[in-house]
Amino acid sequence: MPISTIEWNRGAVRMVDQTLLPEKCKIITIRTPKEMWQAIKRLSVRGAPAIGIAGAMGVVLGARQSKAKTGSALLKDVRKAAKYLATSRPTAVNLFWALDRMTAHAETLTEKSPAAMREELLAEAIRIWEEDRATCRAIGAHGAALVADGETLLTHCNAGGLATADYGTALAVMFTAHEQGKKIRVFADETRPLLQGSRITAWELKNEGIPVTVICDNMAAQVMKEGRVDRVIVGADRIAANGDAANKIGTYGLAVLARFHKVPFYVAAPISTFDLTLAGGEAIPIEQRSADEIASGFGRRTAPRGVEVYNPAFDVTPARLIAGIITEHGLIEKPSKKAIREHLRQAGV
Amino acid sequence: MPISTIEWNRGAVRMVDQTLLPEKCKIITIRTPKEMWQAIKRLSVRGAPAIGIAGAMGVVLGARQSKAKTGSALLKDVRKAAKYLATSRPTAVNLFWALDRMTAHAETLTEKSPAAMREELLAEAIRIWEEDRATCRAIGAHGAALVADGETLLTHCNAGGLATADYGTALAVMFTAHEQGKKIRVFADETRPLLQGSRITAWELKNEGIPVTVICDNMAAQVMKEGRVDRVIVGADRIAANGDAANKIGTYGLAVLARFHKVPFYVAAPISTFDLTLAGGEAIPIEQRSADEIASGFGRRTAPRGVEVYNPAFDVTPARLIAGIITEHGLIEKPSKKAIREHLRQAGV
Repeated sequence: MPISTIEWNRGAVRMVDQTLLPEKCKIITIRTPKEMWQAIKRLSVRGAPAIGIAGAMGVVLGARQSKAKTGSALLKDVRKAAKYLATSRPTAVNLFWALDRMTAHAETLTEKSPAAMREELLAEAIRIWEEDRATCRAIGAHGAALVADGETLLTHCNAGGLATADYGTALAVMFTAHEQGKKIRVFADETRPLLQGSRITAWELKNEGIPVTVICDNMAAQVMKEGRVDRVIVGADRIAANGDAANKIGTYGLAVLARFHKVPFYVAAPISTFDLTLAGGEAIPIEQRSADEIASGFGRRTAPRGVEVYNPAFDVTPARLIAGIITEHGLIEKPSKKAIREHLRQAGV
Repeated sequence: MPISTIEWNRGAVRMVDQTLLPEKCKIITIRTPKEMWQAIKRLSVRGAPAIGIAGAMGVVLGARQSKAKTGSALLKDVRKAAKYLATSRPTAVNLFWALDRMTAHAETLTEKSPAAMREELLAEAIRIWEEDRATCRAIGAHGAALVADGETLLTHCNAGGLATADYGTALAVMFTAHEQGKKIRVFADETRPLLQGSRITAWELKNEGIPVTVICDNMAAQVMKEGRVDRVIVGADRIAANGDAANKIGTYGLAVLARFHKVPFYVAAPISTFDLTLAGGEAIPIEQRSADEIASGFGRRTAPRGVEVYNPAFDVTPARLIAGIITEHGLIEKPSKKAIREHLRQAGV
């Protein structure tokens, strides 16, 4: 990937402000947990794995901001920063996973000096970032094995490089298949309201030389009916123990359409996306976002003032509509509670 | 309806420029067939029945512009204007139906003076307009009989007052049910790319005091899954002899989602929408529109330059997904070639 989504740079976090793509590729600098909270909330950084990394780095910023003189005092401030950052967005579990990991790591460090502890926390955040890079590559390799030369894939929202530290999840499959010399084509749902598909996915695929066609979300059924889609691959923000998967709003409808047209529907996500504390998808909290994203999201009023708007940011696709979940450890075919447990056991989780 | 979609006024046509709604409700004046062609093409006037009326009035403008000294010379110019106006948009059959009716009427008038002929043509265009008003009211009455008190309906695009001379087709059902005192609620798909649902349908329903909630097209599956939709009602631009119905892109996918969620799916359209020369929906020509509507439709670039875009304006819903077609003559349940032929026979067509 030519662009680094997020990176640690001399005491601060540098990231692409994804709200400005594709018109501008602006790098912003984040120096405090509050700035990080805002960047996550307004979607300057987005995508479940990238939000996890942003959260971890946000904790490091909190540790650096802290005036604590002892390890246990610093731990208190680390916990505070993590708790605060957890309130930025409710659905993607990777955020909570990364914050928990940072807090748990801090708990092992309280015997050290605050300076040494800050160093170690930074090292842990960078490990999360590095692990995510390796995870993306592994997902890409496992997923690309499913894709035949000449296939046309359809994706929704952006589960690409900018949603992660590196290659993405759903898009990692496409990048890897393309690298392997397979001639693939991609339909990218524009993904209303915030157009991550047309703004970001199309931009990433085009940058890699993969032919991409942007469609409105309501055209996916038509291209499937025309027989032009061999496979749907999307990312996920949280997957329950039974395989029900939360992802960007519109994913569930796409899975229904895929089933109707007999197009296999795949989810690509790291195992940190699984939330085994939730038995099924109905327990996944769904973020409701501002009406303005729909009613005047493009600098122009697109719905009359005073009209009610419903704007859930995610929906949940039941496991029975999912042909397989691609993780960094391989493929979970026909996901079920049992198959997922077995997959995670083999992965040593 | 507080607003008249289109009307004849002192030698010209006055219409709402629907591209500016809901921010501005501007009335524009159309004086020549060329101006009418452009108004139809850029969707200042839209909706299958309204396009038919616009076409008929465009023919009158052509007749008035003509310098013909005899009835038969004027007929030639009328034919020319009709042929030209027919090239504005390819999918809605009501346009061709109205143009044919105007030409056929002109053919009966060639013994008259050009001045008398122009008068008669204007009278015919106004008859089409008046008939459409009566048609809307009848569709509303037949459709409202299906709707129970307390129902929530979902619609796509705009088949409302502004798509016709008066009450609309799908929305006529809602207006009538509301007048009857039934407490209904409506979900309006915003309808990308041109947002006729959020801009126009939501505006019309709000003006009548009907509670309306705007959603992105990709949220329809979610509200159906939540059990919040009792019935889907949409309009149509052309219906083939077997009941396959062309309507705004996204309608077909909505019909698939409705079937999956066991929500009955209805089409409301005047019988002038039937094109019995076409055996099935695959023969209906689908207008392809400019990539810019998707890639930079909101005054802002929303997809990278150079990326391919697919922008079909319509899709075709197969009859088997349609619970019923509501016309001004009643309900065609489970539409089929036989049921439609019988319905039209009883209507005396």
